Amino acid sequence: MTLEFKIVVKNKLLLFIFCLGNVLLIVGQEVGQTERLISPEINPDNTITFRIHAPKATLVEVSGNWMPMVSNGSGGMIRKTLVLKKDSKDIWSAKSEALAPEIYGYSFLVDGVSTLDPSNLMIARDGIFRTESVLYIPGEASELYWAKNGPKGSVHEIWYKSPTLDLTRRMIVYTPPGYENTTKEYPVLYLLHGGGGDEEAWSTLGVAPNIMDNLINSGKATPMIVVMTNGNPSQAAAFTISPKQTVTSPNVGGMANMQFEKSLVHDVIPYITANYRVKAGKENRALTGLSMGGLQTMNTSFMEPTLFDYIGVMSMGFADLSRFGIEVDHSKREQEILALKREQPKVYWIACGIDDFLYESVVTMRKELEKQQFPYVYRESAGGHTWTNWRIYLSEFAQMIFK
Amino acid sequence: MTLEFKIVVKNKLLLFIFCLGNVLLIVGQEVGQTERLISPEINPDNTITFRIHAPKATLVEVSGNWMPMVSNGSGGMIRKTLVLKKDSKDIWSAKSEALAPEIYGYSFLVDGVSTLDPSNLMIARDGIFRTESVLYIPGEASELYWAKNGPKGSVHEIWYKSPTLDLTRRMIVYTPPGYENTTKEYPVLYLLHGGGGDEEAWSTLGVAPNIMDNLINSGKATPMIVVMTNGNPSQAAAFTISPKQTVTSPNVGGMANMQFEKSLVHDVIPYITANYRVKAGKENRALTGLSMGGLQTMNTSFMEPTLFDYIGVMSMGFADLSRFGIEVDHSKREQEILALKREQPKVYWIACGIDDFLYESVVTMRKELEKQQFPYVYRESAGGHTWTNWRIYLSEFAQMIFK
Repeated sequence: MTLEFKIVVKNKLLLFIFCLGNVLLIVGQEVGQTERLISPEINPDNTITFRIHAPKATLVEVSGNWMPMVSNGSGGMIRKTLVLKKDSKDIWSAKSEALAPEIYGYSFLVDGVSTLDPSNLMIARDGIFRTESVLYIPGEASELYWAKNGPKGSVHEIWYKSPTLDLTRRMIVYTPPGYENTTKEYPVLYLLHGGGGDEEAWSTLGVAPNIMDNLINSGKATPMIVVMTNGNPSQAAAFTISPKQTVTSPNVGGMANMQFEKSLVHDVIPYITANYRVKAGKENRALTGLSMGGLQTMNTSFMEPTLFDYIGVMSMGFADLSRFGIEVDHSKREQEILALKREQPKVYWIACGIDDFLYESVVTMRKELEKQQFPYVYRESAGGHTWTNWRIYLSEFAQMIFK
Repeated sequence: MTLEFKIVVKNKLLLFIFCLGNVLLIVGQEVGQTERLISPEINPDNTITFRIHAPKATLVEVSGNWMPMVSNGSGGMIRKTLVLKKDSKDIWSAKSEALAPEIYGYSFLVDGVSTLDPSNLMIARDGIFRTESVLYIPGEASELYWAKNGPKGSVHEIWYKSPTLDLTRRMIVYTPPGYENTTKEYPVLYLLHGGGGDEEAWSTLGVAPNIMDNLINSGKATPMIVVMTNGNPSQAAAFTISPKQTVTSPNVGGMANMQFEKSLVHDVIPYITANYRVKAGKENRALTGLSMGGLQTMNTSFMEPTLFDYIGVMSMGFADLSRFGIEVDHSKREQEILALKREQPKVYWIACGIDDFLYESVVTMRKELEKQQFPYVYRESAGGHTWTNWRIYLSEFAQMIFK
């Protein structure tokens, strides 16, 4: 649940320490703290106690993604925070409300400066925007997100040539439990991230390997390969790999130019087919993505209507993005819908949260699909444009495909 | 080098932004800052400018692992820091001395509270102890550490059964560039981390995949598979995978009980041999590790003298660790040395920094080896018990093996 160890270090150069749990450790570098606090502490009633040592601070808060947005008094919105209190040892602490089972992100604000929880080494990067401390609340709704005992799939970070984008690019490929021990062929789900993300998004924030292991091991999903690409066409790989790796190719632009979609079809799918044991045919190919990846899913399914039998568009519709400088060409949607309809994909699935800022674009999309009597499944959830929803959507979509 | 973008967000719920480099992004969540600073800025003369916005702070420092340790005035040592100055916009900044090419870790201290650089999303976790912001200084000495253009190996996160430890455990396997495109068999390097680390240490802090790609592509190292295990025998996987995954097995103790070493021989090597295209024979098997992993390397090579032709002990010797509660059994070393000597391993290599706190234990070890006329190669470097040294050692050892 939480890191339940406490380290007492008296010597700044001390190199051997114990931690609870009987794991004996050699520390290779000096330790700068004299005591490690327990934070976050997940209490039996699912409240969370947060703690941080900050002797000189005058205001310490926790900002967590479960907290509501409130007016900032000047027309904007700001996230409500939880204010901590200081004890005689300069340790600030506060207890949250009880939280529903889920994966949450949070950070401390120490006199307004955002800092990770120094006692919590579980962190996650939300694309290029920030890194947060992470906590898991166990329970039925988050049960699929945990790594559990039992067979496990493998996660492969591989590089492939993309002639379309003129780059050697990285992608992450999940192979299901047992893949190594058989000669079976498997269907493939292509899983696309949103803007600001990269090929690491679904395997970290999205916990896709855990979700897939748990669904497959319980018989709820067909064993499948899951391919997590980098959807930013100018990027070779997540910048975490190496700063030099993120060179941009000047001739490749943004998200509305169909470059990623073309590279998916012409570079990624052939590579996967050649290098993994893949079942042939569109009935063994699924595509889904969130937000920008939802647009790319939609675009790809319209551009290549014969390729996928299972298509899932998450948190994206027929959006007018021109106010952001993105000109998406919806002019051929009617023809595209009819062309895709003729191919009779087995599942065309649209999922959106009622608070999603793109909700109206989904309404528009559904109207257009209905006008053409295009069959689709619609899943409306609570909440907005969040990883909470995308984890749920993957959990559901993965159970609908290859059946 | 650094993330060269600047984000100007006027609306806290703004969901589409541009960043320099013409990558267009959709942001899934509100952005809490109004402007993104450039930090760290790597100047042409290899000085670094650090910047952070902290309106209420009274003292802001940078603590970086290149800074010297100095007396704290009360008998202990403390790291020297770089003090920042505030401008009229509440932005604190300071310029470092010129730094040698290397990968560095640092954090801000805002009124004494450690915080990552909010403008730098390159971070690394140093085992269970801390997460730091990371910066790369390019140059000859760090040239092997970058991901470059050219063929790249794959990194596989896989799970295997360890009957010895009664756990399903995770390890990370690097396969060299071209592995997927041939039916060739490869030699295997088993690469062990130190105390406080886990199976992710060598592929993140150690940048082993980049080092191996660069050495193999330049012809300096033989193409090989590199296996990065979790050396903590009670741990199934790095706790980052899922907190529940780090259940401890009560019957498995610490580092001196030979449990990891037995699992390496009886569980890991057979799994790798069965699941990868591995060349047979001890001449195709190498083992190296740092600190705790150096002890495990030594132990394994003595326990199974017929298994490895290439053995590298980094930053560890015949150490008396009893003051830390660890009883290492050195009583049979003479017999063990003689038994290993009879098997004539091709390379027995010992590497240590002159400032390493375990330096004396290496002196003791070398004396014992010499007493038995056991041939070995000794590599003494500057510096101490640090990743700077371990990256150098891997770079060198990888060029000495399978030749």
